[in-house]
Amino acid sequence: MTDFAATRRAFHLPSGITYLDGNSLGPMSLAAKERVGRMMADEWSEMLIAGWNKAGWYVQPRKVGDRIARLIGAGPGEVVMGDTLSIKVFQAVSAALALRPDRRVILSDSGNFPSDLYVAQGLARAVGAELRVVSPDDVDAAITDDLAVLMLTEVDYRTGRRHDMAALTARAHAAGALTVWDLAHSAGAVDVDLAGADADFAVGCTYKYLNGGPGAPAFIWTHPRHADAAQPILQGWMGHHAPFAFDADYRPAAGIERMRVGTPPVIALSALDAALDIWDGVALSDLRARSIKLTQAFIAGVEAACPDVALNSPRDPALRGSQIGFRHPHAYAVMQALIAAGVVGDFRAPDVLRFGFAPLYNDLDDVDRAVGTLARILRDGTWNDERFQQKAAVT
Amino acid sequence: MTDFAATRRAFHLPSGITYLDGNSLGPMSLAAKERVGRMMADEWSEMLIAGWNKAGWYVQPRKVGDRIARLIGAGPGEVVMGDTLSIKVFQAVSAALALRPDRRVILSDSGNFPSDLYVAQGLARAVGAELRVVSPDDVDAAITDDLAVLMLTEVDYRTGRRHDMAALTARAHAAGALTVWDLAHSAGAVDVDLAGADADFAVGCTYKYLNGGPGAPAFIWTHPRHADAAQPILQGWMGHHAPFAFDADYRPAAGIERMRVGTPPVIALSALDAALDIWDGVALSDLRARSIKLTQAFIAGVEAACPDVALNSPRDPALRGSQIGFRHPHAYAVMQALIAAGVVGDFRAPDVLRFGFAPLYNDLDDVDRAVGTLARILRDGTWNDERFQQKAAVT
Repeated sequence: MTDFAATRRAFHLPSGITYLDGNSLGPMSLAAKERVGRMMADEWSEMLIAGWNKAGWYVQPRKVGDRIARLIGAGPGEVVMGDTLSIKVFQAVSAALALRPDRRVILSDSGNFPSDLYVAQGLARAVGAELRVVSPDDVDAAITDDLAVLMLTEVDYRTGRRHDMAALTARAHAAGALTVWDLAHSAGAVDVDLAGADADFAVGCTYKYLNGGPGAPAFIWTHPRHADAAQPILQGWMGHHAPFAFDADYRPAAGIERMRVGTPPVIALSALDAALDIWDGVALSDLRARSIKLTQAFIAGVEAACPDVALNSPRDPALRGSQIGFRHPHAYAVMQALIAAGVVGDFRAPDVLRFGFAPLYNDLDDVDRAVGTLARILRDGTWNDERFQQKAAVT
Repeated sequence: MTDFAATRRAFHLPSGITYLDGNSLGPMSLAAKERVGRMMADEWSEMLIAGWNKAGWYVQPRKVGDRIARLIGAGPGEVVMGDTLSIKVFQAVSAALALRPDRRVILSDSGNFPSDLYVAQGLARAVGAELRVVSPDDVDAAITDDLAVLMLTEVDYRTGRRHDMAALTARAHAAGALTVWDLAHSAGAVDVDLAGADADFAVGCTYKYLNGGPGAPAFIWTHPRHADAAQPILQGWMGHHAPFAFDADYRPAAGIERMRVGTPPVIALSALDAALDIWDGVALSDLRARSIKLTQAFIAGVEAACPDVALNSPRDPALRGSQIGFRHPHAYAVMQALIAAGVVGDFRAPDVLRFGFAPLYNDLDDVDRAVGTLARILRDGTWNDERFQQKAAVT
């Protein structure tokens, strides 16, 4: 059995705070601060340029990728780190499109994270493709024979709804299309199984449930059957067959390495690598079980104590990830009041209170405190105060 | 007068090392380690998600950009940070191409850094453009009326040759083309003047002469006349007009903000921001004068003491940046022997010994030691030892 009391102790959690926003930004692991300090003092400052070999910076994107691979049902050598999630979406979708040269349609849904849609719009305009966006319920029916790429985020950032990756991938393959899965709200939150689902490409960020820190690097996975055929548009030197030969022409590296672009973010990767230590003893089946336990308890508690809110997530845990949304007409102010009381979730427009449950450090005490505080704020009308109405730049 | 003794003291320089490879990776500033530790302990760990507003993470790419703007002859609000240099090259060239929709030719030279050429090749293939590559001497003559974009690195990574940015930009404009300047080996090394040269786009990295750390984020500048018209292909949410409205459709932010893509790398930006403090008292004219003094002294010293090497950089300081190359038939082994003796430059294929002079921390003692050590190694044949022949993964 995974020892979740031990994984919780591996984080710095500010006193007095119940943190249910790890699906926006995971907390700092105790190891990360130490590791980054050591990386700077012992590696960068002492080794200087030699750190690329001596400290292993050059191979770090692949080594960290291997650690993430285990958490998403992928194999060693199949995942590489770098850039941001938006860039990785661009790489995956452009590579998938190029593998279906006779087709031009990208299908996504309106529950996808907007940045993924923006990236696909920019790509589609540049290469003469078409982005179709349907509602999440209509994806299955919209998989037609003209589709090149099905691009979906497995877990909806707003509702927590979880797509059936295996079933939709099978449907896409039957229609002759490839799939790109965004795992932003999945990796480290649910039992992702890319190989089991027979997916084609996957991407994700590491600053949410993987606790890599603000702006931590993204990851990309290519199924081995495509890894040597995928030709991304973003051809950077670190994805070259021989980066230090300084050839004038691009020749892609073998396998997933071609998805590297520029110089890797070494400091950020050190913080992430340290945070990934925590996962070493974690079984994904335990992770999933704990996520379901926490989210079910939260739904039951809120519904019993807060008549004014409406569940905005699937009730069946099989159909959702590790977050729960509730709608309230004054959701913004309610969330500000909650945060002021030490329970940190977030607001998503127009009227959603969003709570992420990270099995690695959230526990039933967090659930109880969040339920009790939300109930009190709604009962007492605490939220109906001018100071809770003012919107900050980033919400 | 700039106090270069003080700027040198602002860095951690390992004892016994003369570091002439700051054009690959700048050393760590003392402030960076402290700032990153503080960012992690006081901001990430305590503020959690609230750091985006409270600690100013969200506006950091623009604020750090403003500090770099001063070093490249740009104005406040014209530069934004993020991603890697390869990604920024892609953004700048794609945006410039889109501003010349009736033209399809990108011109560059064989002295450009290979990654820039790879990026342009990938972009050209995707959007149906053509990349022409000529030798550095032939650029002026190759600027023809079918040109959309002139894409050059101002200072050649191998030879240190510096293009005449103002003259080539004027030639490009006369031919109806736009310019994209890569400042990787210029920013922090020479007196860049983008506004004075009337350039259109510029990009650069910050891990060389700006000392941001391994894999530090890149920067991009757009001339204000293009800033609201430039439409990049890479449409990420942080470049959206209203990122937190979560609209389904992309609308670019005003000005340079549209060149943001994904979530900014906060930890890395903190290290860079700390390193930029050192520039506060530095006049670019002093920087340039010191660079010329150091490089001239190095050429004179090496040529007097080392008959076996041939200068691989322009002799006229007006025609070069802040690095000096010398050719030697066994350059790889010679450089390994130099490094073993504590003088760190680097090797560039096929036969170049490359020495970068960073005015902020290199001084005449570094020059003397490098000259003396190189002369001894060549005189004694120290390099001709098996242990200096073995190539590492990253050279």
